[in-house]
Amino acid sequence: MDGHVLALAGGVGGAKLVLGLSRILPPERLTVVVNTGDDEEFHGLHVSPDLDTVMYTLAGLANPETGWGLAGETFNALSMLGKYGAETWFNLGDNDLATHITRTRLLREGATLSEATEELCRKLGVMHRVVPMTDDRVRTTLSTDSGELAMQDYFVRWQSEPKVNAVNYVGADSASPSRGLLEALEYAEMVIFCPSNPFLSLGPILAVPGLRVLMKGFGGIRVGVSPIVGGAALRGPAGKMMAELGEAVSCTAVARQYEEMLDIFLIDHEDAAHAPMIEGIGIQAEVASIIMNDDDDKVGLARHILALANG
Amino acid sequence: MDGHVLALAGGVGGAKLVLGLSRILPPERLTVVVNTGDDEEFHGLHVSPDLDTVMYTLAGLANPETGWGLAGETFNALSMLGKYGAETWFNLGDNDLATHITRTRLLREGATLSEATEELCRKLGVMHRVVPMTDDRVRTTLSTDSGELAMQDYFVRWQSEPKVNAVNYVGADSASPSRGLLEALEYAEMVIFCPSNPFLSLGPILAVPGLRVLMKGFGGIRVGVSPIVGGAALRGPAGKMMAELGEAVSCTAVARQYEEMLDIFLIDHEDAAHAPMIEGIGIQAEVASIIMNDDDDKVGLARHILALANG
Repeated sequence: MDGHVLALAGGVGGAKLVLGLSRILPPERLTVVVNTGDDEEFHGLHVSPDLDTVMYTLAGLANPETGWGLAGETFNALSMLGKYGAETWFNLGDNDLATHITRTRLLREGATLSEATEELCRKLGVMHRVVPMTDDRVRTTLSTDSGELAMQDYFVRWQSEPKVNAVNYVGADSASPSRGLLEALEYAEMVIFCPSNPFLSLGPILAVPGLRVLMKGFGGIRVGVSPIVGGAALRGPAGKMMAELGEAVSCTAVARQYEEMLDIFLIDHEDAAHAPMIEGIGIQAEVASIIMNDDDDKVGLARHILALANG
Repeated sequence: MDGHVLALAGGVGGAKLVLGLSRILPPERLTVVVNTGDDEEFHGLHVSPDLDTVMYTLAGLANPETGWGLAGETFNALSMLGKYGAETWFNLGDNDLATHITRTRLLREGATLSEATEELCRKLGVMHRVVPMTDDRVRTTLSTDSGELAMQDYFVRWQSEPKVNAVNYVGADSASPSRGLLEALEYAEMVIFCPSNPFLSLGPILAVPGLRVLMKGFGGIRVGVSPIVGGAALRGPAGKMMAELGEAVSCTAVARQYEEMLDIFLIDHEDAAHAPMIEGIGIQAEVASIIMNDDDDKVGLARHILALANG
C-alpha cells in the first residue's frame, strides 16, 4: 500500500497513533480528521482541544506528561482571569492561549475552522494535514444524573464523575463534513479509527451526516484500534461511560459501535479471547500489541496497521 | 474643599498624580476620566493602554519600573503569538492579556467600554471611579514624514521617531462624552488636568464634542499641571512633538493649549520665569514641586493641588 491514509482521531489516545503514522508516512500520504465535538468557548475564545492535541503532538510541542497542552507551559493569564472572576477549571496555559487567540481572530475575520487549523499548523511546522471533522458547530453534550453537561464540563470540570445516560451531538444533524475530510476520502486507500473514545471522540465524527454511509461504502481497507484493553479504557472515561450506557466494557462492545464500518479491529493480546465475538460482528479481529507507552510503541503500532493493507 | 474632583488623565504621567489623589480623596470624591484615543486592537483583542495604566496603578499592580504593565509580568503568550506570525512589537504580558481577553469578551457581549472598565476595576479592587472619555471609537493618528500612523504604531513600534506634522483624533467628531464623565462634571467642584501629553493624552479627551465648552463653562476650580519642565518633557515624546508642531517646548506652550479651560497651572520651580507669560494667557501660574519620583511626591503634589481650592 503506497496510497493515502485517513485517520479519524480524538485527543490524546488518537494523537499517539497519529504521531506513529506521521513518522512513517510522508505528509502527502496522511490526513488526520479530528473531533470538534468538544470545542468550547472559554473567555470568549474558541478552544478546540482535540485539534490542538493533535497539532501540538505533530509539532513536537506537546506536554509529554499529560499528552495535552504544551511542554513547559505557564498559567499566569489564567490566574489573572481568575482575579477577574472567570472560571478557571479549564487549564489554559499562556502559550496555549496564543493558539486560541489566533484561532478566534482568524474565525472572526471570516476563516473557516479548517482554514484556521491549516494556518496554525503551517506556522508550527506541522506538515501532515490536520482537518476538523466539520466547519459547522457540533457540540457533544452528556445527559447525566447531574443534568445536561457540555463535554468539557463533564470531562474536565466534573472529572467524568456524573453518571451518563446518553451522549448527544448537538448540531450534528445540520453539519456537513469538512472539505478536507471529503477530499482525503476521495483518494484514501486506508481509513484508520484511532484508539479514541467511541462516544466522545469518534462518535461525534461519525454523527456528521454522511460519514457512516461514507465509511460503510469506503472502497479501501478500514482498520480500527481498540481503546479498551482487558475490560478497562487505556485512558479517560470510556470504560465508565460504556458501563453506564449499558454496554459491556470490552473491545467487542467498541467493535459493535463500528459495525459495517471496519474491516479489521486491532485488540490487545490480553483480549485475544474476544476475537471470535468480534468476528461475529463481521469484523476481522487482529491481536496485536496496542498499548503505546513510548514513541517506539506508536511507530510500531502504526507500522503494524499499515502492513495490514499488504496482507 | 470637600467636593468631588474630576481628573483628566492619559497614561503613566497622569496615573502618577491620580495615585496621589487616590491616597487623599475617598472613592466617592474622585472620578478619573481617561484617554481612549490610543486604544488599539491587537490579535483581535481590545487593548486600552491608558485605562489599564490607571487601573493597574490604582490596584497597586503596576510595574514600578515602567509605570505601565503589571509587576512580575511574563511574556510567554506573546512569544507563541510570534510563532503564529503575529507582530509582537506591542508588549502584551500574560497577566495583562487576561485584562484584554476579559474586556474583549465583555464588549462582545454588549457591554460599553465604561461598563467593561467598571467591571475590571471592581474585580481588581479599584474603589475610585475610572471612566473612559467616551464609549465611542476615537483613534489618535499622527501625520508624520513616514505617513499616517496609529498612536501605538508611532509611540511603541516606531519609538516616536517619525517627525509629526499633525495630530488627528479620528472619530472624535461623532463621539459623545461617557455618562460617567458627564455625571462627575455635574457635581465636581474641581477639575484637574494631569501632567499628561497635551496632544496625545489630554488632546483626545478635549476633542470629544462638548468637552471644551464644558471645561470653559465649568463653575468650580480648574487646575492643570505641566508635563514640561525646563524645556523638556518629563517623559515621552511631548517635547519632540511640540517642537515638530512648531510650538515652543515649554510649560507656557502647554498652558496655551488649555486657554480658557484652566484657572491655575502648576509649573516647576525651574520654570518660574514662565509665570508672567502664563498669566498673560489668562491662567494663574503656580510655582511648585511638580516632579513625582516616588509616592510621597505624588501625594504631596495632590495635596498641593487640592489645597488650591481653599486658597
